[in-house]
Amino acid sequence: MHIVDVDDGFDLYLGERLILRHRPDRPCIYVGRGEPRIAMYRGNFEIEDHVEERVGLRHAAIAGRLIAFSTSPEAKPRLVAAIEGDADAGAIVFVEADAAIDRFWLRIEAEPFERVYGGGEQMSYFDLSGRKFPLWTSEPGVGRDKKSEITFQADKMGGAGGDYWHTNYPQPTWLSTRRYALHVETTAYSAFDFRRRTFHEIEAWAVPSRIELFGAPRLETLVSRLFERFGRQPPLPDWVMNGAIIGLKDGANSFARLEKYLEAGCAVSALWCEDWVGIRDTSFGRRLFWDWRANESWYPGLADAIAALKDRGVRFMGYVNPYLAVDGTLFPEAEAAGHLAKNHAGETYRVDFGEFDCGVVDFTSPGACAWFEERVIGQEMLDFGLSGWMADFGEYLPVDVVLSDGSDPMLMHNAWPVLWAEVNARAVENRGMTGEALFFMRAGFTGVQRHCPLLWAGDQSVDFSRHDGLVTVICGALSAGLVGNAYHHSDIGGYTSLFGNVRTAELMIRWAEMAAFTPVMRTHEGNRPRENIQFDESPELLAHFARATRIWKALVPYLRTLVAEAGETGLPCQRPLFLHYEDDARTYDIQDAYLYGRDLLVAPVWRAGERSWTAYLPAGERWVHLWSGETHEGGRDVEVSAPFGEPPVFWREGSAHAELFDGVRREFATH
Amino acid sequence: MHIVDVDDGFDLYLGERLILRHRPDRPCIYVGRGEPRIAMYRGNFEIEDHVEERVGLRHAAIAGRLIAFSTSPEAKPRLVAAIEGDADAGAIVFVEADAAIDRFWLRIEAEPFERVYGGGEQMSYFDLSGRKFPLWTSEPGVGRDKKSEITFQADKMGGAGGDYWHTNYPQPTWLSTRRYALHVETTAYSAFDFRRRTFHEIEAWAVPSRIELFGAPRLETLVSRLFERFGRQPPLPDWVMNGAIIGLKDGANSFARLEKYLEAGCAVSALWCEDWVGIRDTSFGRRLFWDWRANESWYPGLADAIAALKDRGVRFMGYVNPYLAVDGTLFPEAEAAGHLAKNHAGETYRVDFGEFDCGVVDFTSPGACAWFEERVIGQEMLDFGLSGWMADFGEYLPVDVVLSDGSDPMLMHNAWPVLWAEVNARAVENRGMTGEALFFMRAGFTGVQRHCPLLWAGDQSVDFSRHDGLVTVICGALSAGLVGNAYHHSDIGGYTSLFGNVRTAELMIRWAEMAAFTPVMRTHEGNRPRENIQFDESPELLAHFARATRIWKALVPYLRTLVAEAGETGLPCQRPLFLHYEDDARTYDIQDAYLYGRDLLVAPVWRAGERSWTAYLPAGERWVHLWSGETHEGGRDVEVSAPFGEPPVFWREGSAHAELFDGVRREFATH
Repeated sequence: MHIVDVDDGFDLYLGERLILRHRPDRPCIYVGRGEPRIAMYRGNFEIEDHVEERVGLRHAAIAGRLIAFSTSPEAKPRLVAAIEGDADAGAIVFVEADAAIDRFWLRIEAEPFERVYGGGEQMSYFDLSGRKFPLWTSEPGVGRDKKSEITFQADKMGGAGGDYWHTNYPQPTWLSTRRYALHVETTAYSAFDFRRRTFHEIEAWAVPSRIELFGAPRLETLVSRLFERFGRQPPLPDWVMNGAIIGLKDGANSFARLEKYLEAGCAVSALWCEDWVGIRDTSFGRRLFWDWRANESWYPGLADAIAALKDRGVRFMGYVNPYLAVDGTLFPEAEAAGHLAKNHAGETYRVDFGEFDCGVVDFTSPGACAWFEERVIGQEMLDFGLSGWMADFGEYLPVDVVLSDGSDPMLMHNAWPVLWAEVNARAVENRGMTGEALFFMRAGFTGVQRHCPLLWAGDQSVDFSRHDGLVTVICGALSAGLVGNAYHHSDIGGYTSLFGNVRTAELMIRWAEMAAFTPVMRTHEGNRPRENIQFDESPELLAHFARATRIWKALVPYLRTLVAEAGETGLPCQRPLFLHYEDDARTYDIQDAYLYGRDLLVAPVWRAGERSWTAYLPAGERWVHLWSGETHEGGRDVEVSAPFGEPPVFWREGSAHAELFDGVRREFATH
Repeated sequence: MHIVDVDDGFDLYLGERLILRHRPDRPCIYVGRGEPRIAMYRGNFEIEDHVEERVGLRHAAIAGRLIAFSTSPEAKPRLVAAIEGDADAGAIVFVEADAAIDRFWLRIEAEPFERVYGGGEQMSYFDLSGRKFPLWTSEPGVGRDKKSEITFQADKMGGAGGDYWHTNYPQPTWLSTRRYALHVETTAYSAFDFRRRTFHEIEAWAVPSRIELFGAPRLETLVSRLFERFGRQPPLPDWVMNGAIIGLKDGANSFARLEKYLEAGCAVSALWCEDWVGIRDTSFGRRLFWDWRANESWYPGLADAIAALKDRGVRFMGYVNPYLAVDGTLFPEAEAAGHLAKNHAGETYRVDFGEFDCGVVDFTSPGACAWFEERVIGQEMLDFGLSGWMADFGEYLPVDVVLSDGSDPMLMHNAWPVLWAEVNARAVENRGMTGEALFFMRAGFTGVQRHCPLLWAGDQSVDFSRHDGLVTVICGALSAGLVGNAYHHSDIGGYTSLFGNVRTAELMIRWAEMAAFTPVMRTHEGNRPRENIQFDESPELLAHFARATRIWKALVPYLRTLVAEAGETGLPCQRPLFLHYEDDARTYDIQDAYLYGRDLLVAPVWRAGERSWTAYLPAGERWVHLWSGETHEGGRDVEVSAPFGEPPVFWREGSAHAELFDGVRREFATH
């Protein structure tokens, strides 16, 4: 990073890249004060900000690597930044700031045809250009499209409809096609505004501790560097390589139903019963009983059943989240020990989770963390025999909660998913099971990568819709993958069934065949299992699913190389096409297809009623259609037949895994 | 107005009322710059503002009646205000302003339980407290309630759904229960923000020329003073006192259908045919042909028919708006003469009005105004025999238009309805027909009162909905009435029928019976006449309507006193209850009932399925139920029977018109 002092201002460069251009009539920093209004209803936030003051810090006084910003040459500095680093990486570190500042805006120079990606896990738009993205962990919304009937209905139901930017996992980090990445180190509410041609504007409701910058000659290298900065997940456990994780939540009957999957020839690695804790019925559907211990009446003899299953090579997985139902057994234990967050009256804070209330385990208290790690995850889950779990939620920290360490919930809200991930990771580590016990999360923020071994894409609607259906899972994998999350997967068939929107067999088939080309396959019965079709309700459907699991399993040798690559270079399993073909301009628009490792291109069918599909194949290679073995020249659109079970997949001619891929054709192709 | 100089700041009073409190840590004025994004689609505006800078002018230097505002004692003044006036009325006049300022915010001191009213013609909320109201003339929206299915459908259709603040007629003027009124003299985009307990914030996208303040010991006096400031309409024409205006748009058949109304015993003052110019069919419904002259093929022999009708005591009314369809005869005439607004390429600007394009008559050009006044309104309308017309639209001025006098369309957009009203008023005046020819408008802004003799409430949905149905018309009358609009009326039965929402007979009945207690009764066939019931389609419905017109006519002697009162004191015909009962706290919440003059209280049934109704009667009087003659003590809720045709109406015991009111009971009461 170098500063070029010019008349009345300066330019800041990362290598050749102009990052900041500051002039008195065009300051790069604005500061001020705001007064937010924040309402939460079941994880959906309504956020309004009244900006009381926003002042350009027009005067910059430079002394070596320090820049002091003030409103005028006479006024005293309101912000002092230290510029650190070299041409490859650096930071703008805010070493002093006027305490009255609670709104901060920074303008980063932009080029008209620049593209930007990142923002954590984004479900609607992979390319962030031209839009504004608030970064605040929350429910992602149901429908997420103000023009859809489902969103309208969900919005009426407590503002639950969401919009394109809503995500469980935001992160104030972006990658630019100018071959740099930028990260804002803050947990405050922030927003990226990419609607201008000449600058990107960062907004934060606190002065960030620093703005980090990373440069690299190639985007691929940049992604590796972000993985180093944020990531380093353990490898996937070996047992997962046995097959799919079958999600059933049918009490003891889940074990009987698992047998149908096995009999149908499914490759299975685990049975996942999120209802291992028991259930409660609500109007949203059958919900779990949020008291994190095996429920003997709902799953009699569960410990023995888990052991018996393990002997057959199938693991058992459960469910946990960071809240405790007030009518459970752990709530009074945690409350008595002072492990729960309080309200301003000094009482235990209760969060409404939809027809039941919960306490919030206070992860700012080391004692509460230790209790949850040992008493809950350690004893009730790992010692009991669980090999993994969904570590759900993390997005609901209310902003009017009182935390034990006195920290501001406005700053802890975004940090909460990371604290939650840490608790899970430490609990696993405490039992020496890192890389063996597998938990997966939907919530995230900067740093979750270091602790959470596997993301799942959250709660899609059970449909093919553009902003909440199957296709959004690809966008989630690609965006999260750029900032250090190597492993991503989703609920096969989607999750949210509301307002009469139910799964079709076609959706189940298309979702399963896509999942065969991701690192982890896992089914979910959804929020309303009885109203939605399940794989084991139809022999044809089950056969289709079984075949998909065997295709997945056939690719395990290839997956193992991706896991190794993730460990070495930090490249995610699912990658945008431009990551390896950055000279091919066509690739930058694509968010409904991905490279699965370097050698497979997957373009899932994500619309209903399609029996053929057009995919773009990157230039400079020849691509072999997995099912027909036909070879296509890259650099153009190719239309292929896409019957059920044969999603559009191509492999790179010359791949070291050609034999493996051709073997899939020989074994599984239908004609 | 007096300034009290205090350490580092000042207080500004209007009499005893603290208006501004300025301290360095709590400045009353903020200024800055913004960059708006404005998109218009058929009169629906999407407005987004990027506030680049917002700076508190913390330092105030006082010199006599001048206050110079700057950011600090060292900085040079950015705004200079002159304080004018006395304890009863005054102004903050901005005599100097930094030319770089294009955003302005002023904080007016507020009290926690203060109520505020005004904002022009507001359709959803009469009491503005607790909400923010952008003030920008536009379509009011269809449904106007984000939780209604109709709004959702309309929003999908080009963002046409609207919200609570959308109005054809905004005006930056409010009245406070602190017994003052405040007016912001600007035509720029502005907003009133009443969401804070301790201050109201005025936003304007230009430094207003002045902020006017009016004080009075009673609210009634304040309303009179605003009428003096803004209003002074001519009295209603005498011919209107003959009965209802019957709206039909059925070509020559309208005349035949009028006979059915007359035969049924309707009191009729005019036949109103908005389709006198001919028609065109669009997907929204049957639209008019926007070429402002009689259409001989659609209305053969119209001039003679008008004359024959006039001989029978029935006038004929038409329709006009400030746009010219490109496929009409007036468009080329206006274009050739240079009377149409241009685009930046120097071509005639064309506005999409829904499947047809129009030119915009450029009212910043005196020549264009004169042409429209003489050639269109004078020759084609008044000379042809029209006694009045709907002067529609005025809200659609695009902000990227090029106007002949070089003025900024961002400043002219809100001014346009007033220019449009002036053109109509001058055209009428030029023929010496002021107070004789009656035009009515929905669009408005500060000053429209001086030119437009009658408002109509715009295009309600044909239903009983809270934010776009019958009840909104009352809110419109009350709010507009406070700022100098003495005369208000509405389309009986509503106008907008979309998405399968059609009129019911009940709606027609309830709307007609309410209209009998307003200064003007007028029917409208709506946007889709064939799909919606009309009065003359059912003998029972027509009989009901005829009876309502006779009740209206029976009240004409009383109406004439209201017209006289409006001329003398400026009080509107329809008044909020608190205007005469300001010591009764209960009256301040009421926006679904009104005083019709001083002596009648009207509480229309505005929900479907109701056969009785509860109304609040102000304290300190006794009220006689119009239909039963029963007397009720004021100061409480009273439930009365409200069968069709007998809307809840009460008269003040001791009224000078007691005999007239009792005569209505004797003639029209059904039991």
